[in-house]
Amino acid sequence: MEKTEKIQADMQALGRAARAAARIVAKADTAVKNHALIAMARAIRCHEASLLAANAADVAQARNKGLEPAMIDRLTLTPKGIASMAAGLEQIAALSDPIGAVTDLDYRPSGIQVGRMRVPLGVIAIIYEARPNVTADAAGLCLKAGNAAILRGGSEAIQSNQAIAACVQEGLRSAGLPEHAVQVVETTDRAAVGELITMSEYVDMVVPRGGKGLIERIANEARVPVIKHLDGVCHVYVDLSADLEKAVRVADNAKTQRYGTCNTMETLLVHAGIAERFLPRICKILLEKGVELRGDEAARALVAGIKPAVEEDWYAEYLAPVLSVRIVEDIDQAITHIATYGSQHTDAIVTEDYSRARQFLREVDSSSVMINASTRFADGFEYGLGAEIGISTDKLHARGPVGLEGLTSQKFIVLGDGHIRE
Amino acid sequence: MEKTEKIQADMQALGRAARAAARIVAKADTAVKNHALIAMARAIRCHEASLLAANAADVAQARNKGLEPAMIDRLTLTPKGIASMAAGLEQIAALSDPIGAVTDLDYRPSGIQVGRMRVPLGVIAIIYEARPNVTADAAGLCLKAGNAAILRGGSEAIQSNQAIAACVQEGLRSAGLPEHAVQVVETTDRAAVGELITMSEYVDMVVPRGGKGLIERIANEARVPVIKHLDGVCHVYVDLSADLEKAVRVADNAKTQRYGTCNTMETLLVHAGIAERFLPRICKILLEKGVELRGDEAARALVAGIKPAVEEDWYAEYLAPVLSVRIVEDIDQAITHIATYGSQHTDAIVTEDYSRARQFLREVDSSSVMINASTRFADGFEYGLGAEIGISTDKLHARGPVGLEGLTSQKFIVLGDGHIRE
Repeated sequence: MEKTEKIQADMQALGRAARAAARIVAKADTAVKNHALIAMARAIRCHEASLLAANAADVAQARNKGLEPAMIDRLTLTPKGIASMAAGLEQIAALSDPIGAVTDLDYRPSGIQVGRMRVPLGVIAIIYEARPNVTADAAGLCLKAGNAAILRGGSEAIQSNQAIAACVQEGLRSAGLPEHAVQVVETTDRAAVGELITMSEYVDMVVPRGGKGLIERIANEARVPVIKHLDGVCHVYVDLSADLEKAVRVADNAKTQRYGTCNTMETLLVHAGIAERFLPRICKILLEKGVELRGDEAARALVAGIKPAVEEDWYAEYLAPVLSVRIVEDIDQAITHIATYGSQHTDAIVTEDYSRARQFLREVDSSSVMINASTRFADGFEYGLGAEIGISTDKLHARGPVGLEGLTSQKFIVLGDGHIRE
Repeated sequence: MEKTEKIQADMQALGRAARAAARIVAKADTAVKNHALIAMARAIRCHEASLLAANAADVAQARNKGLEPAMIDRLTLTPKGIASMAAGLEQIAALSDPIGAVTDLDYRPSGIQVGRMRVPLGVIAIIYEARPNVTADAAGLCLKAGNAAILRGGSEAIQSNQAIAACVQEGLRSAGLPEHAVQVVETTDRAAVGELITMSEYVDMVVPRGGKGLIERIANEARVPVIKHLDGVCHVYVDLSADLEKAVRVADNAKTQRYGTCNTMETLLVHAGIAERFLPRICKILLEKGVELRGDEAARALVAGIKPAVEEDWYAEYLAPVLSVRIVEDIDQAITHIATYGSQHTDAIVTEDYSRARQFLREVDSSSVMINASTRFADGFEYGLGAEIGISTDKLHARGPVGLEGLTSQKFIVLGDGHIRE
């Protein structure tokens, strides 16, 4: 009980400090924010040795605890990883400043001018796994968008995160910005997260990044708006009028370019009229690459080596060399399948037919809808956002890859000359 | 217990029907949606007599229950009110269709084109007081933005709302759209609201409109995103460099054009250097109009008839002929006062000074920030949004007056020609 109260008090203090810092960062000039970002990058490069030492301590503890190799891999910082963290901050400095941009400033019949000005959100909390590079990334994006950040990374990375935070704060200081503009939660107690996501007076948005369990827990318990990304059950639908070469290229890339990412294809839908020509070709490639195929009866009748799919397969985000395959009668059945089993993340059609391309684009309700392109393109860098804090499968505020703009809001501005309402 | 289960089951059925209807409305052509809106308007005009009869029954019951005159006033439908409901729907038909609009479609270095397409949110629940005109308004806006609507008006208006809903559904039918695209909750049991705001699988957004108590309750209990409007503690700051005539005109209008609206000025901030010239003039006008003034000591020293203000006055949304008045030393003190006591709704500066105007516009963190214009302009119609479903004091998704655009989202679209990620 006493311990919980202490954590609550600590988090409240953190929140108050973030709110105060946010007011200052919100009005900081573009040049000042860029100065801070470049100074952070410099500090990270200068302190490479101490970053590696802090990280080595984290990794040693993680190994003792018997963490999975994949998690240790994400936790480990290398000189190359440190250089790319620093370069990432410099890239953020090079992005144009979204804050203060005025759009749609029009005269109204009353004589006033009405427009919108892009403004920071305020204080953003990022909750993530033991991936130290996220610390620098998230800090940089939040700062450029004029926000204060509260960062809570996985407890296994606590020493790495604090070392990176020290570099970040060195950068803030050198630009004359408050150190509390970026704070790393020091306690690894889970109660801190519970407090963080309910302090609506101090936190304006929470971005959880990590496994589905973490995200579901935060979405359920938060009293603060959450930008979240749950599943990536992505589909490629190969239409009757698909160009076979393009279909093979896109489906292969969507599945095998990387298996563990959220924009990887998990289900391949194939029009019955093209299945006989297309399916043997793509399946041969995928089987040779070691992808396990699970299909409906129609698919299994066409290709040997496809295992039977069960109902759960259509819902599955494998994140692995496994693919479910289904033959559909027409585009409507494909769209219905995507609406029923998909996760509204990224879905693509391969077709040369104009009307069906148009229909798919309009009717599929996903954060990214593609024609003749690999689902793997669903990414902030590929979309030209410069960087991304995550991918949102929500519909409100930000949908799809979330870049700087997703960390901002817009206010209305009204310019008059003594105008009054009649 | 049995009753609660019945209500839950009813609401779930309503939700399922809304979700199914939303899929159809989402892909409806602009012409079909406009046909429905115009047919709704026609039905409302044709059924004037039965609308008035249903409303008279509601009003009679409300009188028996001893409802306040102001509430009975809002509940009462007149032939003029019915005509303006119908005209409102026709105006919504005349607005351009936001759905399907593609913006920012650019080629990326990879060769793909990336853009954004505006899409419906899905199912929107509107919870409001006993104001029957909101039923037609909300139905029309949701439909035009391609959404299904679940409407839950105050129980005192239940017969009026059902009569209006019948006209709305007549319009939907005549356009070949599903009747469940607009549903009015039939039970007046409060448990229905509890269910409605937690059915996240069927409801994409909740818009509560009404008193602060209702909105706070919904915001606290909702498991679905809420677009809400809490307080309107609006300020006018009269700067040292204000034009006296403009300052008097704007302050008078902001306070007295209507007392009960959320964009009415509640606190007047005056620069110490102009107070002696400005305050006696504006106070004379306000006192003559019967406005009660509550001020700090400096203001009271300048004008007789100002009562002493207490700390609570600076936080107060009077919604009445009461105004708090404070003298400030400079613009920074004014901005700090607004940040401390305001509600981030609408705040205005009156000044002829370029730099201070620029500073106020950038630094005041409210949904509408104005220069030399009355706060009363903060309104969807005045801003050119065509119509508004409400005013949001939140920062995420929609901020300020919420029109059709606030009832939509954007998805990314990607056009390729067999492009894959390298």
